[in-house]
Amino acid sequence: MINKISTEKCKSSIKALEDAMYVIGGKWTLRVIIAIKDGHTRFNDLQRTIDGISAKVLSGVLKDLEQNGFVKRKVDIGVPVVVEYELLPYAESLQDVLNALVSWGEAHRNKLIKVQEMSIAQP
Amino acid sequence: MINKISTEKCKSSIKALEDAMYVIGGKWTLRVIIAIKDGHTRFNDLQRTIDGISAKVLSGVLKDLEQNGFVKRKVDIGVPVVVEYELLPYAESLQDVLNALVSWGEAHRNKLIKVQEMSIAQP
Repeated sequence: MINKISTEKCKSSIKALEDAMYVIGGKWTLRVIIAIKDGHTRFNDLQRTIDGISAKVLSGVLKDLEQNGFVKRKVDIGVPVVVEYELLPYAESLQDVLNALVSWGEAHRNKLIKVQEMSIAQP
Repeated sequence: MINKISTEKCKSSIKALEDAMYVIGGKWTLRVIIAIKDGHTRFNDLQRTIDGISAKVLSGVLKDLEQNGFVKRKVDIGVPVVVEYELLPYAESLQDVLNALVSWGEAHRNKLIKVQEMSIAQP
């Protein structure tokens, strides 16, 4: 028997989940954050690392990330001018979310591979 | 200086994230899982708990969750017939993801409230 949690309390968890997904649930948001976190800090490097993202979309995502306080755009005026993106401390607060999602995605993929292998082994 | 992680390794993290978001990134998926986890196991109770979900959409999400091995539909043939949904062990594997997202959503909301209060205090 599960201890039923009141509708109000449950709604509050769902609301918090919605708030999180509203900010970070977009198709590219977390992918860009992962790539910057992994040290891919320049625009072209980011685009190479994130398969399928167009320059226009990447540029939009980076602007959103700046506005939401996750990312800082750093311009080094030299020859040539170097633009780099770095994560702000607020992005670090996403560490648990990223770890949990990446771990679960890996486990899920391994599960699917196992199921596939079993279905091949038993025709 | 960040230790740059190779493009290949970074792509693999992004792929795992994509796999996770493909399965659980739908608008309603995690909300329905949270509600069932909190003990709201009947259809009408689920619909009452998850604001804004229509009967048609809830029915579709529950079918997807069954197909993906997260949820089991349990029919008690009595008078009246009672249909209940229960989480399967595979849904438990999402615990870390749910905790991380709900905690982050709560922290994010609190941050926004604080920013709002500060902007009211300093006109």
